[in-house]
Amino acid sequence: MIPNWLLQRAFLTPDRIALSFGDDKWTFSELKKEAVTIAKKLRSIELQEGDRIALLGSSTPEMVFVIHGCLLAGMEVVMLNNRLTADEIDWQLNDSEAKVVLMADEFHKIIRVSKTETKTFTEIKSLPEIPYTITEIWNPSRTITIMYTSGTTGFPKGVRQTAGNHTSSALSSVLNLGLDEEDRWLCTMPLFHISGFSILVRSVLYGMEVRLYAKFDAREVAMEIARGSVTRLSVVATGLQRILAEMEKTDAVASPSFKTILAGGGPIPDDYLQRSLERRLPVLQTYGMTETSSQTATLAAEDALRKSGSAGKPLFFNRITIAAAVNPLDIGEVLVAGPHVTPGYIGHASEKSPLVDGWLQTGDVGYIDAEGYLYIVDRRSDLIISGGENIYPAEIENVLVSHPDVLEAGVCGQEDKEWGSVPVAFIVTDKKISKEQLNDFCKQRLAGYKVPKAFYIVNELPRNASNKLLRRQLKASLDLKRNE
Amino acid sequence: MIPNWLLQRAFLTPDRIALSFGDDKWTFSELKKEAVTIAKKLRSIELQEGDRIALLGSSTPEMVFVIHGCLLAGMEVVMLNNRLTADEIDWQLNDSEAKVVLMADEFHKIIRVSKTETKTFTEIKSLPEIPYTITEIWNPSRTITIMYTSGTTGFPKGVRQTAGNHTSSALSSVLNLGLDEEDRWLCTMPLFHISGFSILVRSVLYGMEVRLYAKFDAREVAMEIARGSVTRLSVVATGLQRILAEMEKTDAVASPSFKTILAGGGPIPDDYLQRSLERRLPVLQTYGMTETSSQTATLAAEDALRKSGSAGKPLFFNRITIAAAVNPLDIGEVLVAGPHVTPGYIGHASEKSPLVDGWLQTGDVGYIDAEGYLYIVDRRSDLIISGGENIYPAEIENVLVSHPDVLEAGVCGQEDKEWGSVPVAFIVTDKKISKEQLNDFCKQRLAGYKVPKAFYIVNELPRNASNKLLRRQLKASLDLKRNE
Repeated sequence: MIPNWLLQRAFLTPDRIALSFGDDKWTFSELKKEAVTIAKKLRSIELQEGDRIALLGSSTPEMVFVIHGCLLAGMEVVMLNNRLTADEIDWQLNDSEAKVVLMADEFHKIIRVSKTETKTFTEIKSLPEIPYTITEIWNPSRTITIMYTSGTTGFPKGVRQTAGNHTSSALSSVLNLGLDEEDRWLCTMPLFHISGFSILVRSVLYGMEVRLYAKFDAREVAMEIARGSVTRLSVVATGLQRILAEMEKTDAVASPSFKTILAGGGPIPDDYLQRSLERRLPVLQTYGMTETSSQTATLAAEDALRKSGSAGKPLFFNRITIAAAVNPLDIGEVLVAGPHVTPGYIGHASEKSPLVDGWLQTGDVGYIDAEGYLYIVDRRSDLIISGGENIYPAEIENVLVSHPDVLEAGVCGQEDKEWGSVPVAFIVTDKKISKEQLNDFCKQRLAGYKVPKAFYIVNELPRNASNKLLRRQLKASLDLKRNE
Repeated sequence: MIPNWLLQRAFLTPDRIALSFGDDKWTFSELKKEAVTIAKKLRSIELQEGDRIALLGSSTPEMVFVIHGCLLAGMEVVMLNNRLTADEIDWQLNDSEAKVVLMADEFHKIIRVSKTETKTFTEIKSLPEIPYTITEIWNPSRTITIMYTSGTTGFPKGVRQTAGNHTSSALSSVLNLGLDEEDRWLCTMPLFHISGFSILVRSVLYGMEVRLYAKFDAREVAMEIARGSVTRLSVVATGLQRILAEMEKTDAVASPSFKTILAGGGPIPDDYLQRSLERRLPVLQTYGMTETSSQTATLAAEDALRKSGSAGKPLFFNRITIAAAVNPLDIGEVLVAGPHVTPGYIGHASEKSPLVDGWLQTGDVGYIDAEGYLYIVDRRSDLIISGGENIYPAEIENVLVSHPDVLEAGVCGQEDKEWGSVPVAFIVTDKKISKEQLNDFCKQRLAGYKVPKAFYIVNELPRNASNKLLRRQLKASLDLKRNE
């Protein structure tokens, strides 16, 4: 039994600030009012509790209102990544069978979906309000959001994130990070990612202000940290590096009231940690994924350098183990359990359970040291993490081999100073095909961050005896190229 | 799925302080070591997971070790009020069918139970340790503690408090009060009451130090508050008044690092609130009971005087409603729902559910104002709250009428400057019987705080048409006596 987050929060602390954006602010009571209006308007297009809809927008107050409106209305919300192409979005709309897709106006101009009914945010505004009683209590198994994540097959899978998943994730986090009435969480992460969405959840559960940014602006963020006008921040390594660079320019340090940076989406280089220390920025590295509705493990700031490379210990309600490990340091697949773990997928992947014997099979490879700290040594399925976005090689390979002139394709990550890693492609072809052609072909079909940054034409791809592509050998050949 | 509290906490933050008592301190790792030893020793007297045992002791570190030892060992622990007489304890042991009663040595000297096997804390120490694997995951429905509370019938009922009840109570509280690594909760409340026990639960869930006192010492507590060596405190009105008196003597104010006093067990007089303000003591009045594993509602410090007499709003996961109320301010029985509400009783009362349609029938009468603040106007079943202890008139009346010379007895509360309220008795008899005789008779059968502070011999008791005792008329006659 979980109370309807926003209704309960607006009842308990109506006058606290819920959201700020630039110079504008909304209390929880005002946020509720906006969301209730949207919930009532959605009724007029015959959306009922339990219906599935999709949402495409960016980080604006309006987007926050629509998200909460959909939750109040009892919808299951497919959070669409706004960097996807129309084809990719169509695929997810098809797979999720979303009844309607709600789009911020600016996306409606550039994205046309083929079949699904579309309503722009402006169109929603002009709908009549249908009065009805909003459900006050949620079942913990109620699906709140669906976020697509790719896998080994290259076909994105829609991950169910329930009210229980999100709630327990926020509660586990508060036991680790603490909570204060003065807390304000700066959100520059996309709301369609669990990293950003989980900040909205914490806001309603904690009664905490979200300071929302439409875009990551390193200079502004650095100033907020130095001023102490925010106390918490979520970043990926790339973002941290840019903030550090800004602070170093003016020799700024974090305000004493600034508490923590939660750094996810892959390991943070020691150099950044050392520089963070000099800027008095407590950095907490964290390990989480879409399937765990945010953090599973988090490394305390005081352990950052002592346990360099570690993702920390599990949060209170979570458990982590290494498959088949007998002793500390034994390496194996990282398995996760806890109330934050998804019950499963929707659509084409709904038959596949991500759990075996109650444990989420992350696909990541790692070990746990004698003190219980988790280390990830290899990402799942040759996952490429680029500026916090997960990229699955198989998805890009699928697109490449659909080109009539491409016989085989292999994709792997290449280290990149700015993004951590970027995808590059190896192509086998018997035709003459230019890199520009390949680039254009991908751009039409893949979000920009997934488009390979380099195309190498090769005679053959490295494969094992059963013909499985060996992506690690692709990576090794890249290192050879660099050393040539 | 809830992790074994102490195992998980000792794994996550082994070196944080868990407990301090005088000058002694124990980390969570040390606390776990003590508790694991006890758990293994209990195995040697053939206690298994799920067995029910009873515990009698006072607020000492040893008692904390034994409590955690029992929880690690998977026991259901009947927490015996150490102010009860041997007869009262025997009744609870019988009703709960506890296999063994564990007693601090000082109680063993004065309390002899008739049938239940007894082990003193010293005897436990000399038992051999039987190695076994401690269960790491608890089912939320697992009973952690059983606390007896009397009711309208006068027969105490054993209330089940599950792992889910205690955990959600601690989580709801943290969303309201916040949490900081520097937090230390001063515990002078009895550990056998939910007010004290819930501090131990918060400690393991939050990774927070409990500063334990064997006895309430107003001077020491006032000094800790002024020094800021603790940040949180639970009290009843009597305790608050004594602390204020001590602080006023030296014109002391609370340290800025001191955060909140949680004040339960009945309303706090405005005079105390005003004086608390002058001492810079943020007082949060709270409404809770054994059946709700601590707080259901809590009034924010900033609302203390504006909403004088209110118990505040529900905590995040809880709900409160007034039976049959249509409008704000309508008076009726206070009904409570939430994950913190007991699933029911054990023993003779196990058939009676305290819930109707999912709502706990508190028996308290109150109303909710237009802003959602709860006000209690009349306590359940003429409940007398004396220095934070609940006293049920029926229980005392049962004892009095068991005296061969007493024909009828009626008990009600009389206002008392120090204790808030004390029980007084009205006796109908046709023999000559002295007040001293009645006093001695009660003392043998009732905990000291339940023994009536006055005995009035009367010709008849006020009763209604169906012969039901009208305790409110007893109370009215007391007011008449005072005004005579």
